[in-house]
Amino acid sequence: MFKAVIGAEKLKDSIEAVSTLVDEAKFKLTPEGISVRAVDPANVAMVSFDLSKDAFDSFDATDGELGIDLTKLNGIMEMADKDDNIELELDETAHKLVVRMRGLAYTMSLLDPSSIRKEPKVPTLDLPARIVIRGEDIKRAIKAAEKVSDYMSIGVKGDIFFMEAEGDTDRVLVQMTKDQLIDIQPAEVKSLYSLDYLSDMSKIIGKAGEITIDLGKDYPLKLRLKLAEGHGEVSYMLAPRVESE
Amino acid sequence: MFKAVIGAEKLKDSIEAVSTLVDEAKFKLTPEGISVRAVDPANVAMVSFDLSKDAFDSFDATDGELGIDLTKLNGIMEMADKDDNIELELDETAHKLVVRMRGLAYTMSLLDPSSIRKEPKVPTLDLPARIVIRGEDIKRAIKAAEKVSDYMSIGVKGDIFFMEAEGDTDRVLVQMTKDQLIDIQPAEVKSLYSLDYLSDMSKIIGKAGEITIDLGKDYPLKLRLKLAEGHGEVSYMLAPRVESE
Amino acid sequence: MFKAVIGAEKLKDSIEAVSTLVDEAKFKLTPEGISVRAVDPANVAMVSFDLSKDAFDSFDATDGELGIDLTKLNGIMEMADKDDNIELELDETAHKLVVRMRGLAYTMSLLDPSSIRKEPKVPTLDLPARIVIRGEDIKRAIKAAEKVSDYMSIGVKGDIFFMEAEGDTDRVLVQMTKDQLIDIQPAEVKSLYSLDYLSDMSKIIGKAGEITIDLGKDYPLKLRLKLAEGHGEVSYMLAPRVESE
Repeated sequence: MFKAVIGAEKLKDSIEAVSTLVDEAKFKLTPEGISVRAVDPANVAMVSFDLSKDAFDSFDATDGELGIDLTKLNGIMEMADKDDNIELELDETAHKLVVRMRGLAYTMSLLDPSSIRKEPKVPTLDLPARIVIRGEDIKRAIKAAEKVSDYMSIGVKGDIFFMEAEGDTDRVLVQMTKDQLIDIQPAEVKSLYSLDYLSDMSKIIGKAGEITIDLGKDYPLKLRLKLAEGHGEVSYMLAPRVESE
Repeated sequence: MFKAVIGAEKLKDSIEAVSTLVDEAKFKLTPEGISVRAVDPANVAMVSFDLSKDAFDSFDATDGELGIDLTKLNGIMEMADKDDNIELELDETAHKLVVRMRGLAYTMSLLDPSSIRKEPKVPTLDLPARIVIRGEDIKRAIKAAEKVSDYMSIGVKGDIFFMEAEGDTDRVLVQMTKDQLIDIQPAEVKSLYSLDYLSDMSKIIGKAGEITIDLGKDYPLKLRLKLAEGHGEVSYMLAPRVESE
Repeated sequence: MFKAVIGAEKLKDSIEAVSTLVDEAKFKLTPEGISVRAVDPANVAMVSFDLSKDAFDSFDATDGELGIDLTKLNGIMEMADKDDNIELELDETAHKLVVRMRGLAYTMSLLDPSSIRKEPKVPTLDLPARIVIRGEDIKRAIKAAEKVSDYMSIGVKGDIFFMEAEGDTDRVLVQMTKDQLIDIQPAEVKSLYSLDYLSDMSKIIGKAGEITIDLGKDYPLKLRLKLAEGHGEVSYMLAPRVESE
């Protein structure tokens, strides 16, 4: 069983955190909350999303799995006002999710969880450098980098965190010292990442006050942020592009 | 003759109320005000619009008829600021309407009234149920229903007013009790209506504080609202779609 | 050498004043400021733009010339917030312009000035009538005139300044008396101008508090406005269309 009430904005942000990478996802239910692990179709990026029951005004769930069409759920949430309370209820016999807001009930058919890509194993990575940075600072760097290239280097050199994109004629370089960051644990690292993925993530990144980035040398990056007033955590892993030239 | 001054917002809302259904209309002038009766090209919906001379800052008219291209008049009104006063003057010899705002005069050719579809007879309908509801509540229901179907049932069951749309897999149901409505005069009624028409009407419906809906069983609905600070009244009639399956 | 700091909004307005007519331009540097003279590809309109060093927070330049891709520079400026300070620095060896804002450096390749159309000679015109008018009043007239025609007459008759456009069926006429204008120096003048050009200029015209227009009879118009808090001046010249019928 599953029945819960949550503020519209928290639910919207949660759906967006996952729909950045995939259109359909398995939402795992436990009495303690909801979680999603998903990998994008090209196997380049992975999202881990955990929403504690404390994010909800009320939350009752037994262990289970919901196959959710995120595009559709996003569309339903567009009808909600920021301050609406959203009630979610699983109709187990009909295999549908009922989404209620101010007298309106949207009964959404669920997807067969077995039709959705298997949950990925989350690899353990040894990433020596860690940066804590304002979300809007990354968002701006991504937006600038897109103007000159499809890829962006992210790394640390000495005490300086940098994001850099090289085009045929133009170049974008963002350098941030310790006092421009929230925190830095330096290590000599640098990897090249696809701006397609970073750009998709940048909408939710831009909203987050604080982003933690773990980095290695030609290694995946791990990017973490909190949402739902601290009761939710999203973690993205993004594979590097190995420079061949 | 016709010469009148009116606030831009009242005129915009008035044009929009009619242009929801038709692109061209005959505006009937009398010393008491302006009225339009029009039916959409598919004969599914009808609009009755009455604007009292009290809506105007000044109003002088003898009996007459103006053939108006509503798309063009909408375009002219886009140039007006919310607080502008609009002067309308008929140039009878040239058969043109002069629209003046802050020193700018737009001389618009009129359409030959005989080229516009004949005014419909407004049928007298015996509609047993009446609901008075906030415009934004209907607007939201229409928006939700469009996500799952092209049609929406509207009716009353017991003391509950409902709007319902059924898609292949999903369903939207809005139920409102007496205390969620402004008023209800119940009767067992239900009809199916095209969301295309309701959606076109929803922009002006959403602006209105209060909408009165009269309903029957597989019968047209009548939807009334006030505009121009109470000096204008719009009434739509919408034919039901008879369910064949 | 060239190194300067300027408020983002002043720089944006300056680029827009020129990019209204051309996509690429030669920016002439002197120790006193920056200037541009450019003519549009069809030789119908010309822009003279002068930005004093007083518009800058700091300004250091020797005589020189920068070939700027205005579309690209516009794109970079979109990333700046209104209150950002923008640092511009010429990298003479690499022949690039570095644009810095809040830790982000965009290195933009410069165009070869010799590849850009030669600077036009600014003709001396004897224009008898002069009107000083609010920018928004011209903008609104242009917007209205576009609805009926591709050309607009601008002129003075007696003490009245007028802008007029004639379509096949409709007509737009704006007439302004001395007290509706900021100033007028009358003379019997009238010329016909392309609305394409006026429309392109109208965005920056609409922002300016005060526009000075010099007019003749079937003669180019000269339209001047200040920007960057009075430290910049833009002057457009627009050739008339000679009426053949």
